[in-house]
Amino acid sequence: MEQRLSLITLGVADVAASRRFYERLGWVASSASNDRIAFFSLGPVGLSLYQRDALAADAGVAPAPPPAGAPVTLAHNVASRDAVGPCLAAAVAAGATLVKPAGDADWGGYHGYFADPDGHLWEVAWNPFVALDPDGGFRLP
Amino acid sequence: MEQRLSLITLGVADVAASRRFYERLGWVASSASNDRIAFFSLGPVGLSLYQRDALAADAGVAPAPPPAGAPVTLAHNVASRDAVGPCLAAAVAAGATLVKPAGDADWGGYHGYFADPDGHLWEVAWNPFVALDPDGGFRLP
Repeated sequence: MEQRLSLITLGVADVAASRRFYERLGWVASSASNDRIAFFSLGPVGLSLYQRDALAADAGVAPAPPPAGAPVTLAHNVASRDAVGPCLAAAVAAGATLVKPAGDADWGGYHGYFADPDGHLWEVAWNPFVALDPDGGFRLP
Repeated sequence: MEQRLSLITLGVADVAASRRFYERLGWVASSASNDRIAFFSLGPVGLSLYQRDALAADAGVAPAPPPAGAPVTLAHNVASRDAVGPCLAAAVAAGATLVKPAGDADWGGYHGYFADPDGHLWEVAWNPFVALDPDGGFRLP
């Protein structure tokens, strides 16, 4: 199995409502989106928003309630320490819930967390050890 | 907030065991990995494996049991219909659980699902509507 990822799908209660949240972040939905699914191109990977029970059916598993805790987190890294707070504030202004305010991270960076309307956790992080590519890519050694 | 993703973190029971699973898939861990966290570079995004309770603590939320159902799915797209079955078989040989065998997908492609040792769901998919980049990237319109 090749070492890559194509698409991340978040199970959501209401595709249209969730799409509007991400659009309020300033993101532009892919033209591949329709009433049943929304896609956002994140460069060479995609993010999709799909109704939770439909996603479970697609996977052939039983529907489940929204996740508790942090089974999976998605990180959005920023280029400077000073960019963390404003990015969290922008997410909250778009309708996110602040989960952890900006502060020093145990691993030596600076970060905070917000939850999207379905409880999916996003970390906004500045990592002083891994510089972002000029195009925003985060390439690990 | 810019339209991009840097890192996906999967909460796992045992970092070393989970790392071994992904290594059995043929993936190579980043040199940034250590005993507490494992990283895999997936091109311009990273995947990390972090102990479930530690991840919850990092996010400032209460620890939670492993996810039920499919709150989030990760897709690994392949270049042809014929590649889906062997990729699922390789994952099962590495210790994954087959969740949905290869078959026609409602959306017009061909796919199947496996669960990693912590229950995180991966879809292996052939999508006839979006060609993979030569480097394996999945760029939505």
